[in-house]
Amino acid sequence: MRKILLGAAAALLASTGMSMANDSVMSGTKNPNGWVIQTGDYANTRHSTLSQINRDNVGDLQVAWSFSTGVLRGHEGSPLVVGDTMYVHTPFPNIVYALDLNNYGAIKWKYEPKQDPDVIPVMCCDTVNRGLAFANGMVFLHQADTTVVALDAKSGQVRWSVVNGDPSKGETNTATVLPVKDKVIVGISGGEFGVQSHVTAYNIETGERVWRAYSMGPDDQILMDPKKTTHLGKPVGKDSGLNTWEGDQWKIGGGATWGWYSYDPDADLFYYGTGNPSTWNPAQRPGDNRWSMTIMARDPDDGMAKWVYQMTPHDEWDYDGINEMILTDQEIDGKMRKLLTHFDRNGFGYTLDRITGELLVAEKYDPAVNWATHVEMDKSSDQYGRPQVVSKYSTEQNGEDVNTTGVCPAALGTKDQQPAAYSPRTELFYVPTNHVCMDYEPFRVSYTAGQPYVGATLSMYPAPNSHGGMGNFIAWDGKKGEIVWSIPEQFSVWSGALSTDGDVVFYGTLEGFLKAVDAKTGEELYKFKTPSGIIGNVMTYAHDGKQYVAVLSGVGGWAGIGLAAGLTNPNDGLGAVGGYAALSNYTALGGQLTVFKLPD
Amino acid sequence: MRKILLGAAAALLASTGMSMANDSVMSGTKNPNGWVIQTGDYANTRHSTLSQINRDNVGDLQVAWSFSTGVLRGHEGSPLVVGDTMYVHTPFPNIVYALDLNNYGAIKWKYEPKQDPDVIPVMCCDTVNRGLAFANGMVFLHQADTTVVALDAKSGQVRWSVVNGDPSKGETNTATVLPVKDKVIVGISGGEFGVQSHVTAYNIETGERVWRAYSMGPDDQILMDPKKTTHLGKPVGKDSGLNTWEGDQWKIGGGATWGWYSYDPDADLFYYGTGNPSTWNPAQRPGDNRWSMTIMARDPDDGMAKWVYQMTPHDEWDYDGINEMILTDQEIDGKMRKLLTHFDRNGFGYTLDRITGELLVAEKYDPAVNWATHVEMDKSSDQYGRPQVVSKYSTEQNGEDVNTTGVCPAALGTKDQQPAAYSPRTELFYVPTNHVCMDYEPFRVSYTAGQPYVGATLSMYPAPNSHGGMGNFIAWDGKKGEIVWSIPEQFSVWSGALSTDGDVVFYGTLEGFLKAVDAKTGEELYKFKTPSGIIGNVMTYAHDGKQYVAVLSGVGGWAGIGLAAGLTNPNDGLGAVGGYAALSNYTALGGQLTVFKLPD
Ligand SMILES: O=C(O)c1cc(C(=O)O)c2c(n1)C(=O)C(=O)c1cc(C(=O)O)[nH]c1-2
Ligand SMILES: O=C(O)c1cc(C(=O)O)c2c(n1)C(=O)C(=O)c1cc(C(=O)O)[nH]c1-2
Repeated sequence: MRKILLGAAAALLASTGMSMANDSVMSGTKNPNGWVIQTGDYANTRHSTLSQINRDNVGDLQVAWSFSTGVLRGHEGSPLVVGDTMYVHTPFPNIVYALDLNNYGAIKWKYEPKQDPDVIPVMCCDTVNRGLAFANGMVFLHQADTTVVALDAKSGQVRWSVVNGDPSKGETNTATVLPVKDKVIVGISGGEFGVQSHVTAYNIETGERVWRAYSMGPDDQILMDPKKTTHLGKPVGKDSGLNTWEGDQWKIGGGATWGWYSYDPDADLFYYGTGNPSTWNPAQRPGDNRWSMTIMARDPDDGMAKWVYQMTPHDEWDYDGINEMILTDQEIDGKMRKLLTHFDRNGFGYTLDRITGELLVAEKYDPAVNWATHVEMDKSSDQYGRPQVVSKYSTEQNGEDVNTTGVCPAALGTKDQQPAAYSPRTELFYVPTNHVCMDYEPFRVSYTAGQPYVGATLSMYPAPNSHGGMGNFIAWDGKKGEIVWSIPEQFSVWSGALSTDGDVVFYGTLEGFLKAVDAKTGEELYKFKTPSGIIGNVMTYAHDGKQYVAVLSGVGGWAGIGLAAGLTNPNDGLGAVGGYAALSNYTALGGQLTVFKLPD
Repeated sequence: MRKILLGAAAALLASTGMSMANDSVMSGTKNPNGWVIQTGDYANTRHSTLSQINRDNVGDLQVAWSFSTGVLRGHEGSPLVVGDTMYVHTPFPNIVYALDLNNYGAIKWKYEPKQDPDVIPVMCCDTVNRGLAFANGMVFLHQADTTVVALDAKSGQVRWSVVNGDPSKGETNTATVLPVKDKVIVGISGGEFGVQSHVTAYNIETGERVWRAYSMGPDDQILMDPKKTTHLGKPVGKDSGLNTWEGDQWKIGGGATWGWYSYDPDADLFYYGTGNPSTWNPAQRPGDNRWSMTIMARDPDDGMAKWVYQMTPHDEWDYDGINEMILTDQEIDGKMRKLLTHFDRNGFGYTLDRITGELLVAEKYDPAVNWATHVEMDKSSDQYGRPQVVSKYSTEQNGEDVNTTGVCPAALGTKDQQPAAYSPRTELFYVPTNHVCMDYEPFRVSYTAGQPYVGATLSMYPAPNSHGGMGNFIAWDGKKGEIVWSIPEQFSVWSGALSTDGDVVFYGTLEGFLKAVDAKTGEELYKFKTPSGIIGNVMTYAHDGKQYVAVLSGVGGWAGIGLAAGLTNPNDGLGAVGGYAALSNYTALGGQLTVFKLPD
């Protein structure tokens, strides 16, 4: 028996040739004391089983210690905690600090890459970075300039580094990476620069490139099998990434992959979404523009797509489909289902079967959403799975150089990059949302490599006839597709949520408050004004038997681009500056970590 | 009787022509709920009569709220509090925020001057600013570029502004201002650029210049009366600011006035100290170099000096005399005396009679001080009042291009700008100190306007044969000239102290800790790690009946110049970079306000 087991293990090692990131990440995510990947776990639930801080005592929370990153502008993502060490990253220039949890966050080591600042103007939506991942004794950083670096977690020494793209062509990075099996899987930004975007796998020990899957292009580039890869149960067919585009437009087709990645170890599939087709002027790219705006389920070994689902064919509003896919096992109609839930920019909350890609639920998670009446759920309809667009809000039908007004949500969606959390205790999703509408005027634009390729003028404002604010923090029932409770917020909630076994849900606000609410009722239990607006994601860990909650402050991101980049013209920052102008009455730029605990 | 009083008031008004800053500042400083000038009160005691936070409960302190200033580099000074409003300033570009204490520090208004960044390289010791002053409904800011601005405290509108110096000649500003009577009195920096420095009075309502008193030069420039102005009880004599210099060296003589100002309303005298003579190479400026390194007592109406005391004639170590003068009334030899206590860079703690300028005490406040054996106290000696220099540590006697080693203190003194506090309850001074020694090698340098005019190479290190750290926080008996207790610190304590009627003393550390200690014993009662190293000064205020303690974090200043300016060569930053290199293991750049309170 012992011999057989050894043999099996040896075979496994031989098949991968090296240690498995799975094991490292799964043991890491199973230990609630740590926080090893940005999303909390492979399933992207952002739920912790820690419960020392609970809904009865969270009101006593206080700041334990704090740390300034030395960098201003938008701080997205969160720190990681591995053992006694906390790893903190920053926006450009993407410094990494290893902090000593045994000594008030003293600095064990610091890694500061030298990056050409020319990358800054090629970043569409602030110089953010969504953070590090830890696996196999290494900390992985994907820099703004698309350099992927593996750092020795103990020393900060570079083990390997590889260049994933070319900023001079508008290719940049803001996303975290997914360490899985013997690979690190990474995305790319550039939807506003006409980049033909992709996900790429690098060997986790050497940095060698293993495969690359484009969002659009010929089948051998998009790594789809015309017969085996399915879309809503049907094979995608030959050249689906070509024949849904006119001419060579796919070559500058966008579909960026700057969002969050999840992984199901049993199904051995990883999931992510693709962004908007380029340009924002829909008239310039007739067709469905596959596979922009698509949920992808791929095999991490070879990158092949098992199933895909395009949420917003032929996008006319910049509703990037990159938001996180949260993997849960829940009972639907008396049957346990392996689910994938996704809150899309377009305002629909989708629940799918994550094994087959079957569409189960698609409902608006903000009643303000008006660009489509609904998603067709009748499998026999030729419209099956397609949003039913309201002509009045169709920027394509209204045409170029026409200002389409009152579209809800705005381009930054009912939710943008800010990740939701899921509590298996309440079976609810906790979703930081935007409550913003827009006017959108597309115009003809020509492509020059490395230059903005946007093609629309936007303005944004709070959803009309509502509470006047620009955001809500909601609890969502993913099986029914229903809002359970909703907390109005003055600004978009641009921070990622955290839920815990203490039945508390945490999130941050653009004014800078960390808030804790009751997971069942949404009742506010605690709030604290951190130094700057929060667009980071709340995380929790335990050290020496004590639970801590931590969050990065530092206003910015698309919503905070006015403050972050010092812009004041309302239409600047792709239309966000005007809508969020009042933010400057509440907060200024920052870059701080605040760590909370209960009184000793 | 009523008539007579009215008449007297009218006469007073007529004599000044307008409302008196005295009244505004004195009523402001008498109200312990607010904090209207940087030094806490005209006497520079930095003592508050608030006692809600006391030595029994200070251990429960927690963070109430925080605010990021949006600026990195060294944050000196402190916020002000007037009623419901807190005024926060920043280093260059010297932003001023008015924060709403009723709404978690929301921003009521923001003033951001446009300043030429060319001023930055002309600032010797980081882009710091020591803060605002409030008087007569106005907030006064003295910008880096020497523009003095009066802002309407309600609206932030500029009431007047005036230019005090010329950065292209090396004239800059880092100091706060002194509002007194119908004037605002301001200093200037430039001792490392050969500026003939001065204090200047502007009309508080109009900004019109009233008088200017140079530190060196002919009598009509230094505003001294050869017969009436005294030095240690004797008239200074004719042209004292000329004939203690060789040739025209006084024209580039330094004696900058970048420190703290105090005022005695009864004596109607204000007090300040002057900085080093230029250049740091003593061989280039034979003579006593009067009135560099001097405590000045002047009349605010006309600027005339009543008495002066030069602590370090013919400086050979850069021991600027600008540190604060703390005005106390204490009993000495059974007699109540009006005292002035001053902890000089040179390592001696001086106590003088502030009315007459009589020297009462001059003792070392760090046992490491070795450049002088003592200050001669024998009034009949021709050495009376002069430090007795140890030849071995005389950089003049050792000569140009000779490295004088082991001089204690280092150029940044046993104390630099970080202000001490005084508690009338314990009759002790609480002094943040440096415990640093140096090697100093003077070299010949030639003067070019606007170029550094330094003339020495320095290196700094912890005082040898001591606790290994670079600082101490001490309690000092100013009458006896004795250390009562001393807390060793790893780095210089570059933050200003606060003492309160709660018998607690607060200070910050360069690693970023806010510490509270027992005023009687020095026992540590509380510490909290703020986001960045603290070189700001701790202040306290009350709002809605609750006491708060607030401090700015943001590492920098001379001690933190390596981090602040990104320097790594040990001799850079006028020799400070090497000595404080280990700071980067503890903290990174920041700019945050942290406000503390007791639990509700
Ligand atoms: O298409 C793209 O390449 C791309 C990249 C990014 C990015 O990398 O941050 C954003 C977007 N699009 C985008 O559409 C968007 O709303 C957005 C918000 C943010 C942010 O961090 O706040 N980034 C991005
Ligand atoms: O002679 C001058 O003009 C001058 C100016 C300043 C300044 O303005 O900050 C400092 C000094 N000297 C100086 O000697 C010194 O030690 C010093 C420390 C600091 C600081 O803020 O940390 N400033 C200055």
